[in-house]
Amino acid sequence: MEMKRKSLFTLAFFAATFLQTQAQLVQYINPMIGTARMGHTYPGATVPFGAVQLSPDTDTTPHDVSGQYQKDVYKYCSGYQYEDQTIVGFSHTHFNGVGHSDLGDLLMMPTTGALQLNPGTADHPENGFRSRYSHANEKAEANYYSVLLDDHHIKAELTTTTRVGVHRYTFPKSNDAHVILDMMYNIYNYDGKNVWSYVRVLNDSTIVGSRQTNGWARNRTVYFAMKFSKPFKQYGYKNFSTNETYGGFWRRFDIYHNFPEMSGHDLRLHFDFDTKENEAIVAKMALSPVSWDNALQNMQTEAPGWDFDAIKKTGQNLWEKELERITIKTATEAQKINFYTAMYHAFINPTVYTDVNGQYKGNDQQVHQANGFTNYSTFSLWDTYRAEHPLLALVHTKRANDMMQSMLAHFEQSSIGMLPVWAHYGNDNWCMTGYHAVTVLADAVVKGVNTFDANKALEACLKTSNNPYYDNVLTYKQAGFIPDEKSGTSVSTTLEYAFDDWSIAQMAKKLGKNDLYNQYMKRSESYHQVFDPSIGFMRPKSAAGIFRKTFDPLETEGEGFIEGNSWNFTFFVPQAPKSLIRMMGGEKRFVQRLDSLFTMELPDKYFEHTEDISKDGLIGNYVHGNEPSHHVPYLYDFTSQPWKAQSRIRMILNSQYHNGQAGLGGNDDCGQMSAWYIFSSLGFYPFAPGSDQYTIGSPSVEAAVLKLENGNQLHVSVKNQSEKNVYVKKVTLNGKAITEPFLHHNDLTNGGNLVFEMTSKPVNAFK
Amino acid sequence: MEMKRKSLFTLAFFAATFLQTQAQLVQYINPMIGTARMGHTYPGATVPFGAVQLSPDTDTTPHDVSGQYQKDVYKYCSGYQYEDQTIVGFSHTHFNGVGHSDLGDLLMMPTTGALQLNPGTADHPENGFRSRYSHANEKAEANYYSVLLDDHHIKAELTTTTRVGVHRYTFPKSNDAHVILDMMYNIYNYDGKNVWSYVRVLNDSTIVGSRQTNGWARNRTVYFAMKFSKPFKQYGYKNFSTNETYGGFWRRFDIYHNFPEMSGHDLRLHFDFDTKENEAIVAKMALSPVSWDNALQNMQTEAPGWDFDAIKKTGQNLWEKELERITIKTATEAQKINFYTAMYHAFINPTVYTDVNGQYKGNDQQVHQANGFTNYSTFSLWDTYRAEHPLLALVHTKRANDMMQSMLAHFEQSSIGMLPVWAHYGNDNWCMTGYHAVTVLADAVVKGVNTFDANKALEACLKTSNNPYYDNVLTYKQAGFIPDEKSGTSVSTTLEYAFDDWSIAQMAKKLGKNDLYNQYMKRSESYHQVFDPSIGFMRPKSAAGIFRKTFDPLETEGEGFIEGNSWNFTFFVPQAPKSLIRMMGGEKRFVQRLDSLFTMELPDKYFEHTEDISKDGLIGNYVHGNEPSHHVPYLYDFTSQPWKAQSRIRMILNSQYHNGQAGLGGNDDCGQMSAWYIFSSLGFYPFAPGSDQYTIGSPSVEAAVLKLENGNQLHVSVKNQSEKNVYVKKVTLNGKAITEPFLHHNDLTNGGNLVFEMTSKPVNAFK
Repeated sequence: MEMKRKSLFTLAFFAATFLQTQAQLVQYINPMIGTARMGHTYPGATVPFGAVQLSPDTDTTPHDVSGQYQKDVYKYCSGYQYEDQTIVGFSHTHFNGVGHSDLGDLLMMPTTGALQLNPGTADHPENGFRSRYSHANEKAEANYYSVLLDDHHIKAELTTTTRVGVHRYTFPKSNDAHVILDMMYNIYNYDGKNVWSYVRVLNDSTIVGSRQTNGWARNRTVYFAMKFSKPFKQYGYKNFSTNETYGGFWRRFDIYHNFPEMSGHDLRLHFDFDTKENEAIVAKMALSPVSWDNALQNMQTEAPGWDFDAIKKTGQNLWEKELERITIKTATEAQKINFYTAMYHAFINPTVYTDVNGQYKGNDQQVHQANGFTNYSTFSLWDTYRAEHPLLALVHTKRANDMMQSMLAHFEQSSIGMLPVWAHYGNDNWCMTGYHAVTVLADAVVKGVNTFDANKALEACLKTSNNPYYDNVLTYKQAGFIPDEKSGTSVSTTLEYAFDDWSIAQMAKKLGKNDLYNQYMKRSESYHQVFDPSIGFMRPKSAAGIFRKTFDPLETEGEGFIEGNSWNFTFFVPQAPKSLIRMMGGEKRFVQRLDSLFTMELPDKYFEHTEDISKDGLIGNYVHGNEPSHHVPYLYDFTSQPWKAQSRIRMILNSQYHNGQAGLGGNDDCGQMSAWYIFSSLGFYPFAPGSDQYTIGSPSVEAAVLKLENGNQLHVSVKNQSEKNVYVKKVTLNGKAITEPFLHHNDLTNGGNLVFEMTSKPVNAFK
Repeated sequence: MEMKRKSLFTLAFFAATFLQTQAQLVQYINPMIGTARMGHTYPGATVPFGAVQLSPDTDTTPHDVSGQYQKDVYKYCSGYQYEDQTIVGFSHTHFNGVGHSDLGDLLMMPTTGALQLNPGTADHPENGFRSRYSHANEKAEANYYSVLLDDHHIKAELTTTTRVGVHRYTFPKSNDAHVILDMMYNIYNYDGKNVWSYVRVLNDSTIVGSRQTNGWARNRTVYFAMKFSKPFKQYGYKNFSTNETYGGFWRRFDIYHNFPEMSGHDLRLHFDFDTKENEAIVAKMALSPVSWDNALQNMQTEAPGWDFDAIKKTGQNLWEKELERITIKTATEAQKINFYTAMYHAFINPTVYTDVNGQYKGNDQQVHQANGFTNYSTFSLWDTYRAEHPLLALVHTKRANDMMQSMLAHFEQSSIGMLPVWAHYGNDNWCMTGYHAVTVLADAVVKGVNTFDANKALEACLKTSNNPYYDNVLTYKQAGFIPDEKSGTSVSTTLEYAFDDWSIAQMAKKLGKNDLYNQYMKRSESYHQVFDPSIGFMRPKSAAGIFRKTFDPLETEGEGFIEGNSWNFTFFVPQAPKSLIRMMGGEKRFVQRLDSLFTMELPDKYFEHTEDISKDGLIGNYVHGNEPSHHVPYLYDFTSQPWKAQSRIRMILNSQYHNGQAGLGGNDDCGQMSAWYIFSSLGFYPFAPGSDQYTIGSPSVEAAVLKLENGNQLHVSVKNQSEKNVYVKKVTLNGKAITEPFLHHNDLTNGGNLVFEMTSKPVNAFK
């Protein structure tokens, strides 16, 4: 007893000490991580879960109406690529790390010299408002970005509040200074995306309006209110649309210059100033999904003044508080940067989707009042149900509940009675497959963290999983799987439905509904249907029960799987790993196959045509750069060789996450890639959301403290931590040895001490 | 005294008698009047000032996206032309009698046989959903329209409440019956007019959605809720847009069939039914400018049930009550039809523009709550300030005040701080010239009927008449007139501003603001500036003060006047007819000129290229078919030959108004043409709104009773009335002879007896 008390005291003392010395965790956030190649993160400013993401766009795809859908749009999912040498402007909304995109609202660009309302090109930025810049003059911090716009001799700085983007432009002396407001600019631009824009100039420094687009979100209108710290001397716009043949009596006015009402499909506005040398003009842009009155109210509430530095500081303090939820001790600074930047990325999406008065536009396109919760949007659920939502449920329980409330509100408002699939700004783009919102809800209920009505949530899950409109759900229900002829992703979708159904079963069980439990457990076994024992792989099967003849389990497209091959997807039975092992021929063959996945070579031809899979994210044939295999390394925990999980995980942590622009091996996918990093760094992972079980891996930190919202703290400490000591020799929880490679949710939330003892030798710590 | 009392008794008895025998005044409404040629009225169903105008459209201009702006659109300002032999459907919004147009929302068409989502052509209706029909099977009453659709063997009947259109379609037996909902259809269609449409199917018989257009109203969204009395068996749509290149994951769904969420630029929907022989399906369509929740509420409040006949009856009763405001005795039934149909037309526009909960979308595109008044829209003020608004101020004082409140609300919401010019649905299209809303407000204040804050209204008038954005107002103010080089309508706009300014002066005087009065009286004299005494005509003048060299006072276009020639517009000084007479060389020359106007020939070449002027509306060179000369016949009252006014007016009443489809000599222009008829038939006319004076003409009725909202009644009786006795021998008001050809507002509103004594001989009754 004496020993234990002493040990506890030591730990507590130690934790307090490193918390003190790390008073500025926010310095470890490097927003540049993932901005090169496949990460698709953005370097700009945002606060935790902020509705505004104000960031530079280097996008070189054409943004005039003559532009066709471009293959390059994929590269610009977040608007920015580090390799680019020009900036076209600063827009106010960006997704973090997606593989398809939208947004880029209300691009602003300060310029000097002759007014240019065309963006220009990357090769010839001088032909437009675009500017050259140098990374040497660029700085990205949490909630702060600055850059020198070489062509205009302007320093641009960005910061935000939750709903307001704040720009500070420091001009040279000029009688010809401008701020462009490009209302045509889109991330993922294509013909006809701009539906309508409307602007009113309320006075010499205040502008309000709205912008409606038909994009990934089909029906989306962003309202805004904008204020300059200095009155403009004049303003105007040009309508670039070729789709407005109608004149009218307003042609009698000069509506293009200093006329306070503007509207059309494709508008670019300019506001003109005289500036003194080094004169700073601050511009605030508040957004709302409801009305510009609300946008004005958002601005008045969150950013009534003009103190850019104070707004920046307030936002950085918010980030500091977020980071304090999990503090770590690591051997290297780089690890700290990776970890805290992962937390930063994990806490960007979902995003706040209510105005300060609680209003938002629902999935039914009507204005709603969020009562008793903050409504959130940006649900990339195919990605985030895996680790991002479990992470939020663990360390951000209140917000996680608000997010789930938002999903339930979305369900109520859905035209087809569905929980969200990929939802943003009151729309569902139904991107990717499965109905994984059910897993997020089930996970919370099973873990007992839900504050929402679990029975109501179950009803939503049942309706979703029996939806007559959605992606072959009824066929799946009837046939027990999705036949090859019905879908291009028949196998992966069957596997995903089976898993989602299992999570519904767990939820039903927890709520004492045994009939439902049995029914959904039966549905959850449909993975058997698409497994071809003759080759030991999941394989497309026809309605008549015949497996597809020509079939390549290495090919990532066209073989019945979404963004992945059968090699990876065959392991997608997180609900029943033991059954999977049996199905695949027992542990020996299973482990061999798993080993091969990581060690075999996957020739380029199998994935080079699949957008979301790149060499960066590959380890052998294992695809860490995309989500479907994120649980796979932990599968070793269900065999007698859990040490293989440990070494693989450390290898992935080291090889797939770097402190650098190209620091992510694949799209961050709204925090999923980062959430994997956070959990795995701490030594455990939510292998199958919908259970309260975590699989144990190999922590990379030396120590960590999780401050939970229930007031408890979980202290993780790792003995003998080193780059070589990647194997777990022993795990104790509050001094008691853990005898299986699993932890349970309460083990974490009850707080206390989780101690790993590491070694350089493979060993089964859980025998 | 005894005599007088007896006479009063007789009159009262007589009035009561003919009121009783005319219990069904509504039968005299013939909505077909004006549906041929230039009237631009529509034959469909509406209630007084109804927000819904449900009417057949025969429009043959192309309505697919390949259609260019068509010259034929002018013909179809109300969607219907009597000469056409096919109907394309029934849309829910129409202007009454305009000369430019918009609307035609949510066209519905019942069909049988193979589904066709193209309208077809007039020549080949069988190639689309368009149908042949015959006038023999067509019936138009107040708030009721029916027609047999020959190609589909369907009887279609229409009726309305204020905010709900109700259709009853009686089908033949069919397994292939459809109701088309064409969301692309527009009156005044052109490429790019459809901005966006959104639809949700709430259940097997309820549909909600919105439709956004960029038309005469640049920024207009109509929300709707629609219910069928019988569930449809299936539904679907086609998107005709070529401007949506973006796919997306929703392509995985069959979004075109039985999918409850639809959106796009150019949608046509279909709802399919099985029908029995003679089965009637009722469809209700509620509109809202705010939301479909409001539309549902409008429907629930106004038309919760399915009793088509009861809804029709309720609406007809509303019309009956409206007609009872002015009851007449006439020699012929045709005169009654002309008169009551004129009242019908005068009471269609402006239209109610609030939902039942008081909400509307203002000119600032924000949602507002109308507190203490009903908000109105559809203000065609260049037309209606002349007689339509004065008529409403006299017999519809409460509504007239609500309309003026609406104008003041519009002013508050205007981006440029203007009272409405031509406003509908929260937009101002700034059509035509002048700022005549000031005259409407001044007229009410001068007559003392305003319930709004007169000083606030004066402020709005001042700001409007000094507007820096609007049509050369500042130039006019500075130079005292609009120079030729500044405007294509420099002379007529100068004349109109001068008149409007005079009305502001009258208002200021009434409010005791003498400085303002003097200032605006000075402005009102600017007609002198554009009068060329060398030719005795108004004439364009350059900024340097030089009259335009080449000038033809007969030409209606390009000579400095809007929709008119100098011959007519030279008489446009209603604020100072005596001064005009002096300016034109004294009474003799003035009367000669006035006589000539009516008797000279105007060759076609002078007007055939001017849309709003046609032979139908011409009397000599006098254009009754368009507004600028509506006061002109009454100008004789300011000479010693008022009998010339009398004969001309009777001639106009007889020649320009007929009981027949081509019964109007020009666009009814939102009731202005009809209001002229009503006043002139009664024997007086608001010559110069902004004064409380009416000029006396020659009544065509035998008697009339005006029931005023103050509880008073004005009894008009005409002795020796006949077609030949067009001259007034004597006028008495409550027994007292009228000694000038003028009446004052109080003379009418105090009630009593206005007696005309007629003769066949020209005589100056007012000597």
